Amino acid sequence: MKKKEPVVSGERELYAQLRRRLRLPAHTATPFGDDMASISRDSTLLWSTDLLSDGVDFHIAEHGWRAAGRKALAVNLSDCAAMAASPVAALCAVCLPGDASVAEALELLDGADELGRAFRCPLVGGDTNRWPHPLVVAVTVAAAPGPTGQPVLRSTAKAGDRLCLSGPLGGSILGRHLTFTPRVREALRLVETVETHALIDISDGFALDLSRLCVESGVGATVEAAAFDHLIHEDARRLAKRTGRPPREHALFDGEDFELIAAVAPDADDSALKRAGMHPIGSFQEGDAIELRLADGRCEPIPPRGWEHLS
Amino acid sequence: MKKKEPVVSGERELYAQLRRRLRLPAHTATPFGDDMASISRDSTLLWSTDLLSDGVDFHIAEHGWRAAGRKALAVNLSDCAAMAASPVAALCAVCLPGDASVAEALELLDGADELGRAFRCPLVGGDTNRWPHPLVVAVTVAAAPGPTGQPVLRSTAKAGDRLCLSGPLGGSILGRHLTFTPRVREALRLVETVETHALIDISDGFALDLSRLCVESGVGATVEAAAFDHLIHEDARRLAKRTGRPPREHALFDGEDFELIAAVAPDADDSALKRAGMHPIGSFQEGDAIELRLADGRCEPIPPRGWEHLS
Repeated sequence: MKKKEPVVSGERELYAQLRRRLRLPAHTATPFGDDMASISRDSTLLWSTDLLSDGVDFHIAEHGWRAAGRKALAVNLSDCAAMAASPVAALCAVCLPGDASVAEALELLDGADELGRAFRCPLVGGDTNRWPHPLVVAVTVAAAPGPTGQPVLRSTAKAGDRLCLSGPLGGSILGRHLTFTPRVREALRLVETVETHALIDISDGFALDLSRLCVESGVGATVEAAAFDHLIHEDARRLAKRTGRPPREHALFDGEDFELIAAVAPDADDSALKRAGMHPIGSFQEGDAIELRLADGRCEPIPPRGWEHLS
Repeated sequence: MKKKEPVVSGERELYAQLRRRLRLPAHTATPFGDDMASISRDSTLLWSTDLLSDGVDFHIAEHGWRAAGRKALAVNLSDCAAMAASPVAALCAVCLPGDASVAEALELLDGADELGRAFRCPLVGGDTNRWPHPLVVAVTVAAAPGPTGQPVLRSTAKAGDRLCLSGPLGGSILGRHLTFTPRVREALRLVETVETHALIDISDGFALDLSRLCVESGVGATVEAAAFDHLIHEDARRLAKRTGRPPREHALFDGEDFELIAAVAPDADDSALKRAGMHPIGSFQEGDAIELRLADGRCEPIPPRGWEHLS
């Protein structure tokens, strides 16, 4: 598809190009390319790492290097959103296939850095390697707790809380899993204006990630089908036509939506939720049942199915 | 070689075992398995990431999972040593081959965690994935600046500085590249007692890493052959018998010694250097020549050869 540049002749060439290309922030006290990068922050930092690989998380030949780099950072920014944390800086470690060019490696890093700068989360370091297998990229992000000074955990939802969702679900495999916008801004706005008890991002599917939040918090959940069905993504409907499965199933069980599930206080204000981009779709209750309440009042269990990385 | 456990049935099982196994430090404010891990520290943190892969950095069938996990953390701790920084905590992201067992994955993490605890650098989070290719493991370490409150860079050696080395070199491929002790303690002791201008760890070979320090600092270096030859490792001599090359060549150009090269003030005290485990072997000077001074006074250039990750 694209003309190949000559294969990179050395790490130094790549680093030299990176130094010119990456605009490093003032709070980087160590020069790019030293043994470690530095991040100046207050007394608590949150950090996460996600490793993505060609053939599993993207198909490099089809999606391109920029999209792969973007996604590798985006999934980490989604973790920041899930803690209501402000990203600070990122590291990117890559294992390049033997025939990758300098241009391709830089495109990958550009894809990450472009998204990073939009979220004030520049790439400040990393590691480059080569091997005779497909591309692997591992990004680490450091973040500072949001306006409350504390991360919002997944384990602190309370019975009685309202259950909210940040956007429509399902069918992300049609492309959204690469192009989604991490809900960092929404999460920060939410915790600023609404008493937020718990957050999780949907990486492995609504049903599975909701069940994680419930199990960790020791609560059950009831999702109103009417409200949920308004949040079935158009992609879920398109995909359903191909798979023959109901669109709602795709919304419940497909992975990589990277929307947020929030548990907010029972008296959370509808207009404040709306301003934060959150849609109320149910509630949490005592017990461990996780159910979908249909229009006629009947309840169906929502099984904790989804994408299991190690299944 | 080892009996296979049944293939891991899900991420939850692995995480459940990890939570029981990893003894998390009190400064971990978020529960293990939430979206991000937390690290409480003062205002500046250093961090690094290194990605290792089967067939490049280790051979899993030969060396085993524990050795692979240990090395993945050890190379990052060596980066901490190279900044004279105290490690704080680590993240570990793995991409497991399809047939890896839970026991093997845990052995890998145990190998990292055991070394981590010896350096007060516990594993506090990570990411697990599977794919139909060899093992990849990416570790990220956060560290706090050492006693001076500032990291020691590679770019701040001065003409006139003494050139020191923390230990013998060469032939690490015979096994030391897996079992080396990162020079964290030596680096911290050094900066406490000696005016240290620059540090780098030898990951890609003495000659190449010395040239990096020199180029970054804008200085040249002279290595005394007599002093250097005392620091040719027994492994270099053993390897030389196989390769037919001189032992000194292995000490100059082999990679993965993970010893430190230090630039210390001209008046640095010999006994203080000795107590920090550092051996003076030469000096830095104006210009860009990097040379070996032989017993008869003649100087030979030391070419910046070594292990290039992207060659």
